[in-house]
Amino acid sequence: MGLRASAGPPLQSGFALSDYLQERCRLIEAALADALPERPETSAARLFEAMRYSLFAGGKRIRPILALASCEAVGGRIEDAIGLGCALEMIHTYSMIHDDLPCMDDDDLRRGKPTNHKIYGEAIATLAGDALLTDAFKVLARLAQGGLPPSLVLEVVAELAEAAGSAGMVAGQAIDILGEGEPADRVKLEYLHSKKTGALFLAAVRGGARLGGANQSQLEKLSAYGRALGLAFQVTDDILDVEASTEQLGKRTHKDEARGKATYPALLGLEQSREFARSLVARAHEALTSFDERADALRRIASFVVERNQ
Amino acid sequence: MGLRASAGPPLQSGFALSDYLQERCRLIEAALADALPERPETSAARLFEAMRYSLFAGGKRIRPILALASCEAVGGRIEDAIGLGCALEMIHTYSMIHDDLPCMDDDDLRRGKPTNHKIYGEAIATLAGDALLTDAFKVLARLAQGGLPPSLVLEVVAELAEAAGSAGMVAGQAIDILGEGEPADRVKLEYLHSKKTGALFLAAVRGGARLGGANQSQLEKLSAYGRALGLAFQVTDDILDVEASTEQLGKRTHKDEARGKATYPALLGLEQSREFARSLVARAHEALTSFDERADALRRIASFVVERNQ
Repeated sequence: MGLRASAGPPLQSGFALSDYLQERCRLIEAALADALPERPETSAARLFEAMRYSLFAGGKRIRPILALASCEAVGGRIEDAIGLGCALEMIHTYSMIHDDLPCMDDDDLRRGKPTNHKIYGEAIATLAGDALLTDAFKVLARLAQGGLPPSLVLEVVAELAEAAGSAGMVAGQAIDILGEGEPADRVKLEYLHSKKTGALFLAAVRGGARLGGANQSQLEKLSAYGRALGLAFQVTDDILDVEASTEQLGKRTHKDEARGKATYPALLGLEQSREFARSLVARAHEALTSFDERADALRRIASFVVERNQ
Repeated sequence: MGLRASAGPPLQSGFALSDYLQERCRLIEAALADALPERPETSAARLFEAMRYSLFAGGKRIRPILALASCEAVGGRIEDAIGLGCALEMIHTYSMIHDDLPCMDDDDLRRGKPTNHKIYGEAIATLAGDALLTDAFKVLARLAQGGLPPSLVLEVVAELAEAAGSAGMVAGQAIDILGEGEPADRVKLEYLHSKKTGALFLAAVRGGARLGGANQSQLEKLSAYGRALGLAFQVTDDILDVEASTEQLGKRTHKDEARGKATYPALLGLEQSREFARSLVARAHEALTSFDERADALRRIASFVVERNQ
């Protein structure tokens, strides 16, 4: 299972991706734990518990890791992108909590655990999502206290809000819900995913690069990388939704088909979808041609995104 | 009906509050219309429609008006606080949409119109709230493009996020839901309201003052004003919830009592609640003693907040 992407230039030997991902995961999780500590003594203790339940449910932290890797690729210090990484993960987590609500996708399980509203009820789950989204901007705005230029941080705030709001992720979710059961072509599907998944991936890559001091030319190339990667991620998600069910992985899958949602496998077939994902990874690698070995992590992550099996 | 607050110093004659409020309302609504135009051509058109439905449902715009008045009170230009005003109203509107959801307060009517989810369904209503909240930070972050110091705007972003998130408004809503039916004393009730309503009022007053160039001493006095005003607003809301039902205004009232929510009338009785609201307005006026006539709008708004009958 999974896809073997072999496109792209040869990578430095000795780069162990799994160690790298684990180390970056720990870094992000430590920062998230600082940003959102337990608060058992307050009367809103259960709200904090609900926020932490989903935030520390074992996500891959792919968006924050991308932000850090992108910052590094342009020669920046990863410390400067940690706040953005936390904000991205908080926004991603809120979107999962709200997506899982009965009025939305109505999911009971995520990452092998009961979804937020199954444990805390719909009211607290809704509020936990609201609070994660709001607090993300607090964490990001506080970044500037680390010595970054306030004008730069402010641009990243505006771009993240644009990516996550009515022009980006939320629009994608709305289009997805409004279009359920309607026939879609490839243009429509790509547009949907550029909003629903792509916008936040792009904000991760561009935001990390900006905070790392990227120039305009670097930013444009990394944007091309981010767009290709975001779509590759989504195509792979669609493929996994089909394949996982075949292999009886024991979690709720095949849900796209059940809901009449347009997917790449439904539109192109499985083999062509795999081919498309591979071509997107090649496009992502190509965008990095002029970058040196400091962009190796970005290169490896691109391959990983389509090779993953969860 | 309503409260007659006569506390505070004499005001300049010739200041017609209703004209002032109307003019400020128009200013805010024009800016909101710019920030969130109709987008009938996009595939997320219904999301924008839902956002605009609640945003332009005839609110009093009290939070943005406070931000502008506070900016003026310290000698600032109101243009500099318009973006904050829009952000405040967008955040207030999102909180109303989510509060009205079946899993929260389950309300069918707001301002005499069907609530958002009654028209657009729960999924789109949830997303419209999410988008308004997210877009608020985009609007606010873009403020700096008007020539304000980015560091100042960034501080206002952080403070608004703090006021609206898990340390402020959302915490208040959670405490309210978690505590339903539980006995409350006055300390607990004041704490609840300082979060649920107070935090956003305070952010309006402080944010407007900061953007207007307030010094530390002015900021502290205006904070005292904002805290007193926020609580006065909530006590009046509690009173109206009781009185309105008696007078058969035709909208759903008495809901606090039905839900076993702690309120000031339940705790203190109606007459003492009115007295408390009056004393809070006096406290708000007192905080403004050292301000000149440019703070007259703030003075009049404080009286208006407890005199209103809706």
